[in-house]
Amino acid sequence: MEVKVKDPSLAGEGRLKIEWAEAHMPVLMELRRRYQDKKPLRGYRISAALHVTKETAVLIRTLKAWGAEVSLVPSNPLSTQDDVAAALADEGIAVRAWRGMNEQEYFEAIREAARSSPDVVVDDGADLHVTLHEEMPSVAKNVIGGNEETTTGVIRLKALEASGRLLYPVIAVNNALTKYLFDNRYGTGQSALDGVLRATNVLLAGKRLVVAGYGWVGRGIAIRARGMGARVIVTEVDPIRALEAVMDGFDVMSMDEAAPLGDIFITATGDKDVIRKEHMLKMKDGAILANAGHFNVEVSVTDLESIAKSKREIRPNTVEYVLPDGRRLYLLAEGRLVNLVAAEGHPSEVMDMSFANQALSVLYHINNRGRLQPKVYDVPLEQDQEVARLKLRTMGINIDELTPEQQEYLRSWK
Amino acid sequence: MEVKVKDPSLAGEGRLKIEWAEAHMPVLMELRRRYQDKKPLRGYRISAALHVTKETAVLIRTLKAWGAEVSLVPSNPLSTQDDVAAALADEGIAVRAWRGMNEQEYFEAIREAARSSPDVVVDDGADLHVTLHEEMPSVAKNVIGGNEETTTGVIRLKALEASGRLLYPVIAVNNALTKYLFDNRYGTGQSALDGVLRATNVLLAGKRLVVAGYGWVGRGIAIRARGMGARVIVTEVDPIRALEAVMDGFDVMSMDEAAPLGDIFITATGDKDVIRKEHMLKMKDGAILANAGHFNVEVSVTDLESIAKSKREIRPNTVEYVLPDGRRLYLLAEGRLVNLVAAEGHPSEVMDMSFANQALSVLYHINNRGRLQPKVYDVPLEQDQEVARLKLRTMGINIDELTPEQQEYLRSWK
Amino acid sequence: MEVKVKDPSLAGEGRLKIEWAEAHMPVLMELRRRYQDKKPLRGYRISAALHVTKETAVLIRTLKAWGAEVSLVPSNPLSTQDDVAAALADEGIAVRAWRGMNEQEYFEAIREAARSSPDVVVDDGADLHVTLHEEMPSVAKNVIGGNEETTTGVIRLKALEASGRLLYPVIAVNNALTKYLFDNRYGTGQSALDGVLRATNVLLAGKRLVVAGYGWVGRGIAIRARGMGARVIVTEVDPIRALEAVMDGFDVMSMDEAAPLGDIFITATGDKDVIRKEHMLKMKDGAILANAGHFNVEVSVTDLESIAKSKREIRPNTVEYVLPDGRRLYLLAEGRLVNLVAAEGHPSEVMDMSFANQALSVLYHINNRGRLQPKVYDVPLEQDQEVARLKLRTMGINIDELTPEQQEYLRSWK
Amino acid sequence: MEVKVKDPSLAGEGRLKIEWAEAHMPVLMELRRRYQDKKPLRGYRISAALHVTKETAVLIRTLKAWGAEVSLVPSNPLSTQDDVAAALADEGIAVRAWRGMNEQEYFEAIREAARSSPDVVVDDGADLHVTLHEEMPSVAKNVIGGNEETTTGVIRLKALEASGRLLYPVIAVNNALTKYLFDNRYGTGQSALDGVLRATNVLLAGKRLVVAGYGWVGRGIAIRARGMGARVIVTEVDPIRALEAVMDGFDVMSMDEAAPLGDIFITATGDKDVIRKEHMLKMKDGAILANAGHFNVEVSVTDLESIAKSKREIRPNTVEYVLPDGRRLYLLAEGRLVNLVAAEGHPSEVMDMSFANQALSVLYHINNRGRLQPKVYDVPLEQDQEVARLKLRTMGINIDELTPEQQEYLRSWK
Repeated sequence: MEVKVKDPSLAGEGRLKIEWAEAHMPVLMELRRRYQDKKPLRGYRISAALHVTKETAVLIRTLKAWGAEVSLVPSNPLSTQDDVAAALADEGIAVRAWRGMNEQEYFEAIREAARSSPDVVVDDGADLHVTLHEEMPSVAKNVIGGNEETTTGVIRLKALEASGRLLYPVIAVNNALTKYLFDNRYGTGQSALDGVLRATNVLLAGKRLVVAGYGWVGRGIAIRARGMGARVIVTEVDPIRALEAVMDGFDVMSMDEAAPLGDIFITATGDKDVIRKEHMLKMKDGAILANAGHFNVEVSVTDLESIAKSKREIRPNTVEYVLPDGRRLYLLAEGRLVNLVAAEGHPSEVMDMSFANQALSVLYHINNRGRLQPKVYDVPLEQDQEVARLKLRTMGINIDELTPEQQEYLRSWK
Repeated sequence: MEVKVKDPSLAGEGRLKIEWAEAHMPVLMELRRRYQDKKPLRGYRISAALHVTKETAVLIRTLKAWGAEVSLVPSNPLSTQDDVAAALADEGIAVRAWRGMNEQEYFEAIREAARSSPDVVVDDGADLHVTLHEEMPSVAKNVIGGNEETTTGVIRLKALEASGRLLYPVIAVNNALTKYLFDNRYGTGQSALDGVLRATNVLLAGKRLVVAGYGWVGRGIAIRARGMGARVIVTEVDPIRALEAVMDGFDVMSMDEAAPLGDIFITATGDKDVIRKEHMLKMKDGAILANAGHFNVEVSVTDLESIAKSKREIRPNTVEYVLPDGRRLYLLAEGRLVNLVAAEGHPSEVMDMSFANQALSVLYHINNRGRLQPKVYDVPLEQDQEVARLKLRTMGINIDELTPEQQEYLRSWK
Repeated sequence: MEVKVKDPSLAGEGRLKIEWAEAHMPVLMELRRRYQDKKPLRGYRISAALHVTKETAVLIRTLKAWGAEVSLVPSNPLSTQDDVAAALADEGIAVRAWRGMNEQEYFEAIREAARSSPDVVVDDGADLHVTLHEEMPSVAKNVIGGNEETTTGVIRLKALEASGRLLYPVIAVNNALTKYLFDNRYGTGQSALDGVLRATNVLLAGKRLVVAGYGWVGRGIAIRARGMGARVIVTEVDPIRALEAVMDGFDVMSMDEAAPLGDIFITATGDKDVIRKEHMLKMKDGAILANAGHFNVEVSVTDLESIAKSKREIRPNTVEYVLPDGRRLYLLAEGRLVNLVAAEGHPSEVMDMSFANQALSVLYHINNRGRLQPKVYDVPLEQDQEVARLKLRTMGINIDELTPEQQEYLRSWK
Repeated sequence: MEVKVKDPSLAGEGRLKIEWAEAHMPVLMELRRRYQDKKPLRGYRISAALHVTKETAVLIRTLKAWGAEVSLVPSNPLSTQDDVAAALADEGIAVRAWRGMNEQEYFEAIREAARSSPDVVVDDGADLHVTLHEEMPSVAKNVIGGNEETTTGVIRLKALEASGRLLYPVIAVNNALTKYLFDNRYGTGQSALDGVLRATNVLLAGKRLVVAGYGWVGRGIAIRARGMGARVIVTEVDPIRALEAVMDGFDVMSMDEAAPLGDIFITATGDKDVIRKEHMLKMKDGAILANAGHFNVEVSVTDLESIAKSKREIRPNTVEYVLPDGRRLYLLAEGRLVNLVAAEGHPSEVMDMSFANQALSVLYHINNRGRLQPKVYDVPLEQDQEVARLKLRTMGINIDELTPEQQEYLRSWK
């Protein structure tokens, strides 16, 4: 694959970023050290389509340290950090990535990564997997195995599997407990509030903060917002989750009731139009609207545009909409993921566990070559536990182990 | 079934207790009102083996209000509230229960309940189910359906099912989300601390409180103990749960490390010998040991007895053990469930949801007569949600409903 | 003074209680050990009027261990623990106390304590101080010094001082930081909730708990109630405190607005009629009313009696009042201090610091004999800090000390 | 005074910032509206030396709206927001301020402000007050009154007062409860963590965060850090505060013990060398050091420079120091106030209350002309309460008022 980055001279800056990430990804670094002498990936080619960020660079460096030949392309045309791409290119990784690729350039890069006849495919969103299956089945047939980082990608691959057309085994890294239990609560929980603060610098203490959705992300935000002194209201459509929110000490009500009370609204539902015209029309002057869900449809920007008589950017990532009666609503990050746009997305520590699962899943494919079916597999529980165990160890934390008598007791009881 | 209670003159006292429970079981009371005119259980016989407590009385009164003829026997020879039993007997329920039955009397009562040819069987621990299957299969064959309240009972019934010998459909009320998500975190979480306070009256603020196990019970205790000002340490054997505990802000370490630090220890693991000799020998003078797990094996009382040179009850439910070097350890409630022995067990509000599921599951059997297999079924999700919805309504809380467009969006995305 | 207790045979039981208290009063015990060989109080007579409880017994034993001759009478006719009184009498303390003294007996005991010509007077509420000044000025003139435990007592003594009639120096133990900062927040904060739980066994999670007053007691309750999962509302009359409550994340509103929302109300204001007829008439069926303030006037029992059409005790310490429209309100502990009546008052750990200040203040009087004026003094800051330092040490906690350079820096800056 | 700003063309940008601040300073805006028709400051000249920020602009606009003629100069040569200065100049305020003034230019501006013969002087740090007293006593003699925003300034003015040389009455706005109770806990408490996140993007959940000092700032940080999932350690030199920290549920230890445990350290003590060589040498690889106290002496940068073998800026506001053994320590914001340097300082909502006190204190001087002595006065309690009341009102919060009977009760009791 032909290397192409925006500006090779940014490599020095990129290296600094990668080193900072390495300092905060101790699990992956420990794994790198553990296998770098044995080089278990020597002779294997890996194609990765991932957000080209400092954390991804730590994964790529690890795969290289284990002996692999790695090609890297973006999984999103807008998320590439050009300095990181330059640094990786400078270290001999086959990178083809720059911020602001157009769609054609993006898919051309994906195709390049596919053409390099990978033994293992690491993907985020399944564009690379799908391209291999649809455009280059002969290449796909020789793939030993693949990984998938996201919910969306897993859904696409399960559809392929269900139709009987999946050509190699895939490990759903997304489903690792050490990924999804941690990403959403701890990662997005923190970074969504961080995004709101960077965009607005408002005081959270005493504010009414409305969290829409009490899934993992919503819980993470609600608990942290309370911890910062906000008075938190939760909205939900699922009565069982709603009841959990109440029992956890949050006020719960309909969005219709919350609309006139909230100072800050953060959506995290996975659904669209959670905050819409009818709610906006009831809001207080100065209300702030942000989204922490995957797509920018949770706050209806269309509705907001339709009812506002004017708008202007009053701070970076903060647009003021003036309603006909003069009230002002503030939309952050255009309704897109506020933690990615207005802050820096997941802290490296969160990606550490996710990418440790990626690296171990690559190894798993190699070690189990020929023993897996062309199916979508969950991460093996032992691997998941090993990641947690390593994380604890890097934090200097010991935990108990069951004695033989205790194991026996548990077995006998069941 | 011949009615037999300890002392019929306690009926007045029992009625007061039941009324207090009714005031705190709004879901079940709402359900009682909803169906009491239609009498959907008219003509049906129900045999129930349950702890004869004020909350159970609210369930029994509800089943009667719906038209059923009910027999009630205990599910444990020690848990009967004699005044409640007297009140129910006085209201015409066939009760055969008194505190301190011997084993023979207990099983005789179970058999009596079985002999009354029930249409529906409500059980807690499966002694009644098993007796019907083993001793009176001809009666069992005519049973329309059964409910089971506990994990233990469900395990026994699944074994029956697996061996092909289950004779009627059983609903595992235990598995309702509105039961197990709420019982453990909110019910035991509160009442275990309540038990420690009633037994000892120690100040929690500033104390090092060690919670063994970070399952639902452990989480409930840990969060509440922190909320009372304690400094909480969690021990775990599962690395993923241990990591969650750290990320939730708790100190995590091995019991060996926690032993010399803790002021108060509460076990909630489901395993035995979680606190044993080697730990006790390291503890501080004055350390307090309590158990919130089901069986009295989590704190090894045997070990404690073996190393102590003397013991005495220093407060009700608090026994002081003096070690050879003079240090004193305090064992609460003999290592049995501290929330049941030293406090009052689950608040009525928690039993409300569990028993609403019981009542609705009885109706479900009647309404689906002939449509269910002799299997162990989970509570239908709609019923589970209905219980949560009713609970929210009785708290005066409204939640959102998905618009048709939102439902469509969710469908399309998957 | 003639010893008189209810029943000397209770001494064994009383000793157990005292030993339990000693195990939880490490500061006072450390002080006892520190001076018991030197016997600094040898030859001095101390008269104490204090609640005759197990914690007081630990103080009395300490004063005796230091060599003093001690007389003990109650500071309240209802608070005596008869077993503790019996134990002290058995150990040679001149005790004259039994639960349920009438007023004449109570003041006769106070007079007896006054008549014994004390060198130091330890009081709680100032009845003994006032009796000495008003009835036996010639005895009072020979008193070296006195201590006062309560706010009320300090106010009375300051009035005496202002009128120029105070006859000996008094240390306001009540004003020690290690007393009032800790008693109210940590002691009453915990025990008030404990009282509510013992009286009602309601689930706190999800409940709307209204705290009237955001002083130290109110803060202690509010924070702990939130920590148990309650949704907390604060009412206040001071706008600055009200704003602090909001910024601390609590909902704040008028009692009028809170009345129809609350499930549980706890008053802690120091004022009367905080919850009155107009509020009661708006409350929800089942609302629970409790008081954690000093006097039983915060919840207007008069108003409640006047609007109820019937009442009955439904649980110990819980009286149900039925309003004309059928709604039921539950008053705990007759509106008296719920933590004293329905629970056990301050945990021993809290009294530990207060009574360590008492003991050290007695020593201070002896050591500074002739150097103090007949004034009301605050506890010397060094003594206050010494108590805190000892408490930290007994918890195994080390703190930093300023280096000479740091001390110099702080001095130079001011 | 001659107007001078960096770049008048920045006025548009500055106006946007000011409007954003106005939207978050409702108390000051309400006061502006209340008096803008009466113009109570018409004919008065005000000289203000304040940080030239968007919040200050809201104060200046308010004084102008009340009729005053205002001159504004900086209180610090580095804190001027040039766009805000341009906007104010454009609106006819006499501004002389640009970012990066040298010391001569700074004091020249101060002198200019003094020379304009102010009726009221508003100052932050007392440079303007001192210049008036030392260089222009004849001008000072005609000043009606002055305000002072900071602790440092108040100390300087009290020294002037003590020496008998204070020439006009000064209100210590700094001492308003609605300033210092709120600034430190809620303002710095939030913004210090915000600064750490912007500088590092680390995950707080599970981290050991060491807070040095448990004053208002330290408490604010500790509570919020816990609320974000960190495991918090507090260090203190005052045993009483240390004990409060323990009772509030924090781990407390010496810095020596905390050094090897902490992942993140934040100082807030007011003293120097709180973290010094001996501590740094024990820290973990990757430890992060930040300061939230006024001066950059709390983390000894000198010590860090002396033991490091190399340093480099690895992220904006984050400098990596490598120790001889390879361990890396990260110093944020060069040890200066992390909330000002790496984040945006106090949110506008916090300055709202402080500046409402400034505005009302200006009015107070005018309204009490001739009635005040040349002394340092605290803010009148009624004014302090009025600010809190207004803040509550702008949040839509009602609080109770004492009934006449309640007032009588409180009076009678004392």
